[in-house]
Amino acid sequence: MTAPTPIVLAFSGGLDTSFLVPALAERYGRPVITVTVDTGGLDEAARRELGERALRLGAAEHRIVDARRAFFDDVLRFLVFGNVRRGAHYPLSVGAERAVQAREVARLARQLGATTVAHGSTGAGNDQVRFEVALRAFAPELEVLAPVRDQPLSRADEVAFLAARGLPVPPQGAAYSVNRGLWGATIGGRETLGSNEPLPEAAWLLTRGAFDAPHPAERHRLAFERGVPVAWDGEALDPVTLVERVEAAAARFGIGRGIHLGETILGLKGRVAFEAPAADVLLTAHRELEKLVLTGRQQRLKESVAAVYGDLVHEGQLPDPAARDAEALLASSQERVSGEVDLQLRPGSLFVEGVRSPFSLMAASRGRYGETTGEWSAADAAGFCRLSALPALLHARAGGAR
Amino acid sequence: MTAPTPIVLAFSGGLDTSFLVPALAERYGRPVITVTVDTGGLDEAARRELGERALRLGAAEHRIVDARRAFFDDVLRFLVFGNVRRGAHYPLSVGAERAVQAREVARLARQLGATTVAHGSTGAGNDQVRFEVALRAFAPELEVLAPVRDQPLSRADEVAFLAARGLPVPPQGAAYSVNRGLWGATIGGRETLGSNEPLPEAAWLLTRGAFDAPHPAERHRLAFERGVPVAWDGEALDPVTLVERVEAAAARFGIGRGIHLGETILGLKGRVAFEAPAADVLLTAHRELEKLVLTGRQQRLKESVAAVYGDLVHEGQLPDPAARDAEALLASSQERVSGEVDLQLRPGSLFVEGVRSPFSLMAASRGRYGETTGEWSAADAAGFCRLSALPALLHARAGGAR
Amino acid sequence: MTAPTPIVLAFSGGLDTSFLVPALAERYGRPVITVTVDTGGLDEAARRELGERALRLGAAEHRIVDARRAFFDDVLRFLVFGNVRRGAHYPLSVGAERAVQAREVARLARQLGATTVAHGSTGAGNDQVRFEVALRAFAPELEVLAPVRDQPLSRADEVAFLAARGLPVPPQGAAYSVNRGLWGATIGGRETLGSNEPLPEAAWLLTRGAFDAPHPAERHRLAFERGVPVAWDGEALDPVTLVERVEAAAARFGIGRGIHLGETILGLKGRVAFEAPAADVLLTAHRELEKLVLTGRQQRLKESVAAVYGDLVHEGQLPDPAARDAEALLASSQERVSGEVDLQLRPGSLFVEGVRSPFSLMAASRGRYGETTGEWSAADAAGFCRLSALPALLHARAGGAR
Amino acid sequence: MTAPTPIVLAFSGGLDTSFLVPALAERYGRPVITVTVDTGGLDEAARRELGERALRLGAAEHRIVDARRAFFDDVLRFLVFGNVRRGAHYPLSVGAERAVQAREVARLARQLGATTVAHGSTGAGNDQVRFEVALRAFAPELEVLAPVRDQPLSRADEVAFLAARGLPVPPQGAAYSVNRGLWGATIGGRETLGSNEPLPEAAWLLTRGAFDAPHPAERHRLAFERGVPVAWDGEALDPVTLVERVEAAAARFGIGRGIHLGETILGLKGRVAFEAPAADVLLTAHRELEKLVLTGRQQRLKESVAAVYGDLVHEGQLPDPAARDAEALLASSQERVSGEVDLQLRPGSLFVEGVRSPFSLMAASRGRYGETTGEWSAADAAGFCRLSALPALLHARAGGAR
Repeated sequence: MTAPTPIVLAFSGGLDTSFLVPALAERYGRPVITVTVDTGGLDEAARRELGERALRLGAAEHRIVDARRAFFDDVLRFLVFGNVRRGAHYPLSVGAERAVQAREVARLARQLGATTVAHGSTGAGNDQVRFEVALRAFAPELEVLAPVRDQPLSRADEVAFLAARGLPVPPQGAAYSVNRGLWGATIGGRETLGSNEPLPEAAWLLTRGAFDAPHPAERHRLAFERGVPVAWDGEALDPVTLVERVEAAAARFGIGRGIHLGETILGLKGRVAFEAPAADVLLTAHRELEKLVLTGRQQRLKESVAAVYGDLVHEGQLPDPAARDAEALLASSQERVSGEVDLQLRPGSLFVEGVRSPFSLMAASRGRYGETTGEWSAADAAGFCRLSALPALLHARAGGAR
Repeated sequence: MTAPTPIVLAFSGGLDTSFLVPALAERYGRPVITVTVDTGGLDEAARRELGERALRLGAAEHRIVDARRAFFDDVLRFLVFGNVRRGAHYPLSVGAERAVQAREVARLARQLGATTVAHGSTGAGNDQVRFEVALRAFAPELEVLAPVRDQPLSRADEVAFLAARGLPVPPQGAAYSVNRGLWGATIGGRETLGSNEPLPEAAWLLTRGAFDAPHPAERHRLAFERGVPVAWDGEALDPVTLVERVEAAAARFGIGRGIHLGETILGLKGRVAFEAPAADVLLTAHRELEKLVLTGRQQRLKESVAAVYGDLVHEGQLPDPAARDAEALLASSQERVSGEVDLQLRPGSLFVEGVRSPFSLMAASRGRYGETTGEWSAADAAGFCRLSALPALLHARAGGAR
Repeated sequence: MTAPTPIVLAFSGGLDTSFLVPALAERYGRPVITVTVDTGGLDEAARRELGERALRLGAAEHRIVDARRAFFDDVLRFLVFGNVRRGAHYPLSVGAERAVQAREVARLARQLGATTVAHGSTGAGNDQVRFEVALRAFAPELEVLAPVRDQPLSRADEVAFLAARGLPVPPQGAAYSVNRGLWGATIGGRETLGSNEPLPEAAWLLTRGAFDAPHPAERHRLAFERGVPVAWDGEALDPVTLVERVEAAAARFGIGRGIHLGETILGLKGRVAFEAPAADVLLTAHRELEKLVLTGRQQRLKESVAAVYGDLVHEGQLPDPAARDAEALLASSQERVSGEVDLQLRPGSLFVEGVRSPFSLMAASRGRYGETTGEWSAADAAGFCRLSALPALLHARAGGAR
Repeated sequence: MTAPTPIVLAFSGGLDTSFLVPALAERYGRPVITVTVDTGGLDEAARRELGERALRLGAAEHRIVDARRAFFDDVLRFLVFGNVRRGAHYPLSVGAERAVQAREVARLARQLGATTVAHGSTGAGNDQVRFEVALRAFAPELEVLAPVRDQPLSRADEVAFLAARGLPVPPQGAAYSVNRGLWGATIGGRETLGSNEPLPEAAWLLTRGAFDAPHPAERHRLAFERGVPVAWDGEALDPVTLVERVEAAAARFGIGRGIHLGETILGLKGRVAFEAPAADVLLTAHRELEKLVLTGRQQRLKESVAAVYGDLVHEGQLPDPAARDAEALLASSQERVSGEVDLQLRPGSLFVEGVRSPFSLMAASRGRYGETTGEWSAADAAGFCRLSALPALLHARAGGAR
């Protein structure tokens, strides 16, 4: 008689996934192996605590996968290349990691010979779509369970279920639910259920108090190499460390704080507060450096492709090959996005003071905007004006303009 | 013998157009009629001073046209509808008005029976294109002179020309050249000739000193009606007054200050500092209100059209009928963009605290993001997930995923 | 005791909707009112036969709504304005009418005080989405039944059900299933279940035999007014009659025959043969006329918007307000799309011989392509070339081109 | 004393470039080296004749560069990947090669130590822009002469100049001017100066008479590998040979014949007849194969990028790095565009009968369009419909729909 194959559960440590450890084991009579895919925002203590809790909840085994670098290389890098902000505002602080998490869960399941994976998404949000699209694309052969959606219990029932078995119940009753990763945090609470109230100051996680005792202004220098941030204040850093370092510096200034209102994948409107200090700094700096080294046509083209790419990421369609195609264009566009960006940080305010690059198109010109012409003559400019006016002129004439 | 027809000169009062008053009169032996088209940023004293100066320079007549409302209705309104910022940053503070100015100059020329108009643009910048496209489209029959481009003199020669005739010389030697209008100001100087230096604090015009003795935070409420801002803190205002009021309020906080680096119409890179307190507030508030009342498909579609529209405006192609087509879409999209936006202003920081509208798509839903599902069941959501995964799943299978 | 409210059934006369007449009446104990929304392709006899059959099947009442003109005005008109062909090939011959049909069904239900409507779509195709999106948008208060999807029976069971009750069974056993409307026909059969076989000649409906005994070439002239086709060979016609007349003329030549392979709304690939003689002629002629009167910028902008519009129509999202916004742009672009198109029809081949318009941008020019320059000088052209080369030149220099 | 450096002249053998050989030599007192960059459409005799004529005209040397394969690999390949047709019609039969020709001319000039190149473009057309953008980008250091534009003579004067020197005058007096390359031919004449006349049958070059004695229908099979056509009727061929073979087969049927009316780079409308039998077949076949193997999202994304790419090619901006970025996306999208396309050719008519691929997304599905559902249940479909309707439903409710 063979042992039952395990169920691999994506484990965040929240109430839903805590409940699922014993609930799946009981319901299916199979061992549950928990896996936490770390995509940022966990410190050593939190990682250890998660593993201990999983085992106390009855997990046959707990695995932690450090996917921060993979998350940067496979997703965040392209969000930077594309200057992606949803609604010109929200840098997809949370959500983009789901595809990476699903991929790691699927990889582990295959490695362990598991045929079933489970996630704790509800039927209301975006994550169910992101998880299931990615799981089906990366491992079409796996059975996917979403019991919190498909056999829903109230939170009170989940607590009671755990309590009845003497199992640890995660901290309850927090007024705000937080999601945290390498690209920032999102915060939901009573206020975000409607459209017209902000969060109270105490509800912010990373930037709390930034405006109460303002920090004096600071200047920093960020360096990029082919679109990838590579150094902060002259210190070369791997991307993960760099993002964490920038977050620490910018959070004190309340930079990257916002509230996003957008359409969820399911089609209704949702609102969520976010804190994305590192994303705000990196995206802003990158965008300004690009302006120095990309032609106008490059910028226009990549902007339209990046908008599509951002939608693909938000909607959980990162596994669609269209995302690979978009990434190819975005990567191509970064060939010369190398240089430095000088930043001034003040409370609530990020100011790009200057950019420089060996590939500067500004330095390449002998002409200067509004100054003397070096590349062309007055007659050239007059000819350019005359021909630029031609379509509108013909349209005026054809319509009977006198 | 008939009197010579006049030359109508677009007159800003700067050195170039001041020089042109006597220079054109002498060269062509024709009366020069100056016209200043006010598109914002001039107070009563400045308007009067301009007129007096023009006459002292020898203008046969001086006209001032108040085109602020036309500028708002014909251009700025659509920039708000489209949330237009060039390079995700610069709200086209200066440049958009050229088409309106050209149209008014052409209208006046026709009214006066003039067959020749003149403008003071150089051969290096964007304005020559904007003026000439618009003039040819609005009045193809007019001869257009651009003597500063086509018979260029040094600034010293222009000063000498005026001095030799005992004519008033405009104030010289300012380190920074400023353009000012209803949508903000731009500032150019030594620093903006390169890419890596910011302006010194003293060079800013509207926001100077905002960070030195910070103003305490303020809350304001902005109301929109079909996309048009109509009230500020509960007071109904015409758009021009409202823009001026918002500018006064936001400038004190240093809001809307930035440096833009972009491709000029002629194809080289240019850099310019800008201050756009009103534009920053209005565009940010409008964008957030839209998120509450537009469907995701509406937002995506209008974003792509607005990007084209912004390019048309920047490149001086506002007279192209493509701009009319874009305006039709943008106007259609605003049908329900009515409601209120709550704003918090802090030094360097603008925060949207909430939005409300009778057309709220958030309020229309019985479901709530991340909460209970009211519009659909768990099975509906599972079905949606399953079908959303189909294309990526088929792609995985077709490629031989096991 | 009040009479039970009726169920309004969208009735096509095929097996599924024939079965539903008695099946709904039995299951719900409520009268069934059948409605056929005529969106083209039905002649007088077919219309009469449908009504008689509905009554024999037990319908309490049968209604026929002539929605051909509404279909043209509300949908087809914009497909023409946008030159919409899916995959650069398929003119959405079938599917676009579903929103109009749903609207008429909803309108009738409200008028009759019905609270329930039913349609016969299966769970495999596009029509279920189109019907349900439109029904929920036009009449959110109605209950929508889709029994063929939700309580599926085999076709044999449906036949048996009807036979057992002595009810008329629609003709069975046709090898090909046909959909027919004002914009053409689609044909599905064994061959279209795979990707690599064409239809046999006998399976075509409108163009059968067109290549066997070729018709001699014909010349026709089509006139448009603001983008709407208004006359055929000099005879002014209402749009519906014109479309039917053009279809008759072009079908004899085998024009508009094709096979479309595309992604269905549900995300899998589907293949269908189509015959769209009128659509092919009208779209081709309209597109060529536009080239004469629209500026290049207009064409580019409307092409991108039309692509979105075509997707909205295909995916059943015509009720989304984004479609209204797109229609506003498309309508604006047609202001000058008036003129005549000369066509030559040969077997399998449609050739546009010439176009003319009072708004011709070609006639408005004094210059001629490849001939003498009338609008500009050689120096102007040289200046234009020099400045057009500037971005690529700077890019070459910045990269170290010698 | 050093010998004067040569002028490298792009030589087509027409009147303008024939005139330039002695005219440049006389004017500048420098040797003229002629170079013909073969991008298709020349046979061995024509190549030889060109060289002999150049020498008789006084060229110090004549070079011929076979750039057909480079033209395919660097440009045509991407036009196929992108299914590029201008105005949904014209496959850029002529014009795309100018950048390749300019690059080869620049390469030769550098190799020969020349500092000056010359081309024969007039000031009226597109080619001056294409040549000069490419020359400045590929070799910014070269002086570029365009004497036909900048010191124009009448054609009669050019003939007289040659005749006076006893030099060979190219055949004159043809009613139609023809451009010919690997991707087809364009034909201009009296009729194309206006918008409303077709060419007479005798004016066509490749397809003349195709409709007079119609050829019986033929079936052919075209194979693609990663988007590149690799075999015709089972015979593996290099791309250049394949294009020539397909042209020969399709031209007999009159396939690919059309008249294009479009906006020239300078902004006025131009009209030109074209024959593109190979392009028509390859583009049509490729497009249909893509529909089988690309996801819908891939198709939509690449369509928008291909539209930009086609504009870049048409407008002579192929050297802009934006074209490299677009090419990266297009190449990525072709990873699975491998398979076979069955074609039926009839006079004036090209019909795709079927497509097959090992990467078929149609074959990967267990469901079938319009048939039984294999991938999902009726409940899944109902859920998908319900959620698809959500945005339009909320919009209806928010607007007060009852």
